[in-house]
Amino acid sequence: RPSSSSSTFRPMMVAMAQTISYWASIEADVEAHLKTAIPIRRPVAVFEPMHHLVFAAPKTKAPALCIAVCELVGGDRAQAMAAASALHLMHSAAHTHEHLPLTDRPNPKPMVHHAYGPNIELLTGDGILPFGFELLARSVDPGQDNAKRVLRVIVEITRAIGSQGMIHGQYQELQGVQSNEWWVENVCKKKEGELHACGAACGAILGGGSEEEIEKLRKFGLYVGMIEGILNVVAGNKKGLMEIGDRLRVMAMKELENLNGRNVEPISSLVEASLCNV
Amino acid sequence: RPSSSSSTFRPMMVAMAQTISYWASIEADVEAHLKTAIPIRRPVAVFEPMHHLVFAAPKTKAPALCIAVCELVGGDRAQAMAAASALHLMHSAAHTHEHLPLTDRPNPKPMVHHAYGPNIELLTGDGILPFGFELLARSVDPGQDNAKRVLRVIVEITRAIGSQGMIHGQYQELQGVQSNEWWVENVCKKKEGELHACGAACGAILGGGSEEEIEKLRKFGLYVGMIEGILNVVAGNKKGLMEIGDRLRVMAMKELENLNGRNVEPISSLVEASLCNV
Repeated sequence: RPSSSSSTFRPMMVAMAQTISYWASIEADVEAHLKTAIPIRRPVAVFEPMHHLVFAAPKTKAPALCIAVCELVGGDRAQAMAAASALHLMHSAAHTHEHLPLTDRPNPKPMVHHAYGPNIELLTGDGILPFGFELLARSVDPGQDNAKRVLRVIVEITRAIGSQGMIHGQYQELQGVQSNEWWVENVCKKKEGELHACGAACGAILGGGSEEEIEKLRKFGLYVGMIEGILNVVAGNKKGLMEIGDRLRVMAMKELENLNGRNVEPISSLVEASLCNV
Repeated sequence: RPSSSSSTFRPMMVAMAQTISYWASIEADVEAHLKTAIPIRRPVAVFEPMHHLVFAAPKTKAPALCIAVCELVGGDRAQAMAAASALHLMHSAAHTHEHLPLTDRPNPKPMVHHAYGPNIELLTGDGILPFGFELLARSVDPGQDNAKRVLRVIVEITRAIGSQGMIHGQYQELQGVQSNEWWVENVCKKKEGELHACGAACGAILGGGSEEEIEKLRKFGLYVGMIEGILNVVAGNKKGLMEIGDRLRVMAMKELENLNGRNVEPISSLVEASLCNV
């Protein structure tokens, strides 16, 4: 009997190792793409902080989700690479600005190491944002006839990071001294949620998914992002929020049902508790 | 003889009045477009500051130049309206961020009335930028088949406001304690210069100008912006800078030669000394 248990355990381990290496390969590809896109070129005083702050920002799962969804609906990794890179750029700009030493923040962010003065960090964030849109706009390829898809992705990203998305969440964070669960869930929805929803939707758009798939995967991404946001807040405890996390996990998996003929295994690993913090 | 002098004076006055009302009509149209594009909608806590800060920013000539150039090369005003609005949005985001109370600015900007706390002003600038790109991306009209032109304009604008354009000028401003003429000219080139060059180029692209026209008008716009920037710095005196202004004026007019068959009168008024501060 021990041997039978180990024989069901082994394939599971293999599957898990494959999943981990799948995500690692995506992350490596996005990072390599960004490193090529942001060389330390002239003016060095501008590009050196940009390079530093883009790679210093903690990673989110939004870029990897974008690529995995593109592959899920039958697209190539290359088709989603500019969008995935842009998503990390937008996130790193927001991260940089969130840690500026401004005086009127009710819940100051934990101190971070500031490599540059605040004005340089402000300007660098301001420079990263248009650079993300430039990357996207330049990914139009007449050979691929993808102009319409790229324009749609630009609109998706402007909305996710804009005044009805991430910015709205950041406003709520500033204005609320509340920290009840409803409030946390709502802030995480607007911040991490919208970014990941957008990542999944963009991957599906670029990979040629159907409208129904785009919307299901958008919702799946929303839950993935919310779970990520809530885990960041709770940092491993606080029961009420963990329960929200579990509820979101179930809702996320529900969106993956009826994606007929699609291999949802890789992306479903994003909401499996054991892998949530990989 | 007095009558003959008054008879040459009258047509000049009429032409000047026409030019002034031409610019006024463009400014009114851009403002009306922006007012429709940024209604005070929900979430009010987000859109009310956005509305306020967009209209509180001092106007530049970049949006009007974009539209005038579009008309100059034979396009319709409507074709350039989204780009002109986006240019004002980008400028107003930069203006808002430039006046944030950060502590390490060597030449603090003159105090402005802050209607909101610094974090709200930071976020509002961060929200205006993607909104500008959204306006642009949404101006694609299958009926007009303008997707390629709009994508090109998006790239133009990302570059003008990005790390090799406006942001580079702002870096130079931060890092230079110099205030010699070379330095002022260079900062004005990167900041106001690039924005106006971009405005003119985008107007020419959207209106269907030739590549040669796009490049001539881009240079013209560069000089218009540099003159505007230098006038802001000198506020009416400092001889050396006024001489740079005069030199730029001559260079600007030179770009308008050989635009065969185009009516350059309206845009040439932008660099006529008497109208420079209209």
